[in-house]
Amino acid sequence: MSELRVIGLEGLPEIGAGDDLAAELSQAAERAGGLEDGDVVVVAQKVVSKAEGRTISLRDVVPSRSALSIAVDHDPRQLEVILREAARVVRTRPPLVIAETSHGFVCASAGVDASNAPGPETLVLLPDDPDGSAAQLRTRLEDLSGRRLAVLVTDSFGRAWRQGTTDVAIGAAGLTVLLDLRGVRDPAGYELHATTIAVADEIAGAAELVMGKTARVPAAIVRGLELAGEGKARDLVMPPERDLFR
Amino acid sequence: MSELRVIGLEGLPEIGAGDDLAAELSQAAERAGGLEDGDVVVVAQKVVSKAEGRTISLRDVVPSRSALSIAVDHDPRQLEVILREAARVVRTRPPLVIAETSHGFVCASAGVDASNAPGPETLVLLPDDPDGSAAQLRTRLEDLSGRRLAVLVTDSFGRAWRQGTTDVAIGAAGLTVLLDLRGVRDPAGYELHATTIAVADEIAGAAELVMGKTARVPAAIVRGLELAGEGKARDLVMPPERDLFR
Repeated sequence: MSELRVIGLEGLPEIGAGDDLAAELSQAAERAGGLEDGDVVVVAQKVVSKAEGRTISLRDVVPSRSALSIAVDHDPRQLEVILREAARVVRTRPPLVIAETSHGFVCASAGVDASNAPGPETLVLLPDDPDGSAAQLRTRLEDLSGRRLAVLVTDSFGRAWRQGTTDVAIGAAGLTVLLDLRGVRDPAGYELHATTIAVADEIAGAAELVMGKTARVPAAIVRGLELAGEGKARDLVMPPERDLFR
Repeated sequence: MSELRVIGLEGLPEIGAGDDLAAELSQAAERAGGLEDGDVVVVAQKVVSKAEGRTISLRDVVPSRSALSIAVDHDPRQLEVILREAARVVRTRPPLVIAETSHGFVCASAGVDASNAPGPETLVLLPDDPDGSAAQLRTRLEDLSGRRLAVLVTDSFGRAWRQGTTDVAIGAAGLTVLLDLRGVRDPAGYELHATTIAVADEIAGAAELVMGKTARVPAAIVRGLELAGEGKARDLVMPPERDLFR
């Protein structure tokens, strides 16, 4: 029987710059019964960014003229930070700014977020290299647990055409992120030529269901998958030449 | 401890028009240990459509002039069916046609699919009323099991900006599809004003991870959620006036 378990990791302390996030995750996993070979450890971007010091105080931000000109319902200092993080602004409808980040992700506010920040007037930015963040966490968690693991770093993104956010992978290490079924045939022999499944994003969404947004459950274990591999979350970005919605 | 279980429902027979899909799902669930109160039964659109007879033989299709003019790498009869199912063509890049369906969903080929079809030269269409399909399945499954259940009907959709498909909800009954956290505050008191989570789509993606595309696992149970409600999958469609990507 195919079965998946998604286990929330509870009781993590508030994470700050320089904290040993892997050690905290490892201890939380022990309290949840311990890690097993093949587990995917899913970690919310917010705590990864905080551990890496990827936060900025609005008090240190002087808005540029372009931020002042766009800001309608925004604090112009917050918009200044969004514009700094954005490689390209995709759409705006105040106060919504949808932008492409330096990593190629298209999301609200270029991933800049004021919620669950370490203090008032403080913004949390995406990690500089989320695939690298996932790889580092994976190495440390494997060392601490003695288990063969995968790690996803996830964030909540809106979508075109559909309401609400779903969690997606912005960093990955140790697993297949895109399951390519091209060439595979259905029971009738029909080739599934267009089918590549973004399994990393489905895992991210599954983990979100136990993580919640306000409870201190910033991580989860997803158990029962057989997706060992070396995919990167950057592989999930649609290449510009194939992107019909740029 | 917050924990979710996702259990694939195996051993279903090939489903055809008029078959009692709810009875087959109920028997498969019994083999998997039985249904419990609060379970979400996730069913792939393909088997729902087949049970409802929502298939069409290409032999019965005469392509219109507009289908003939657009068809490049397509069978023009298949394109004719896609155009009939489409309320609006959003983008084309042969052989890809991204269209809005009568339900408001934006997806490849207006949901028309040749894979896992009941025969060669046969296409499977989306259900006429997927929320209604989910509601009917829910009523029958609750009667058969004596349990309080929710049902999602799901399909694999591509996304703007990101590679690969993820499964999303196109029909829903008995649960909250959008979890609205507006007004909820984070531990620091910051209001999560922009946060509405498309939990139904996250559940759909979680189920896909055990369902697969070629194995005969067209359904799954998702257990451990507390999302009872009366949301409809049509609520997941972004209203045109709020849609920045039409």
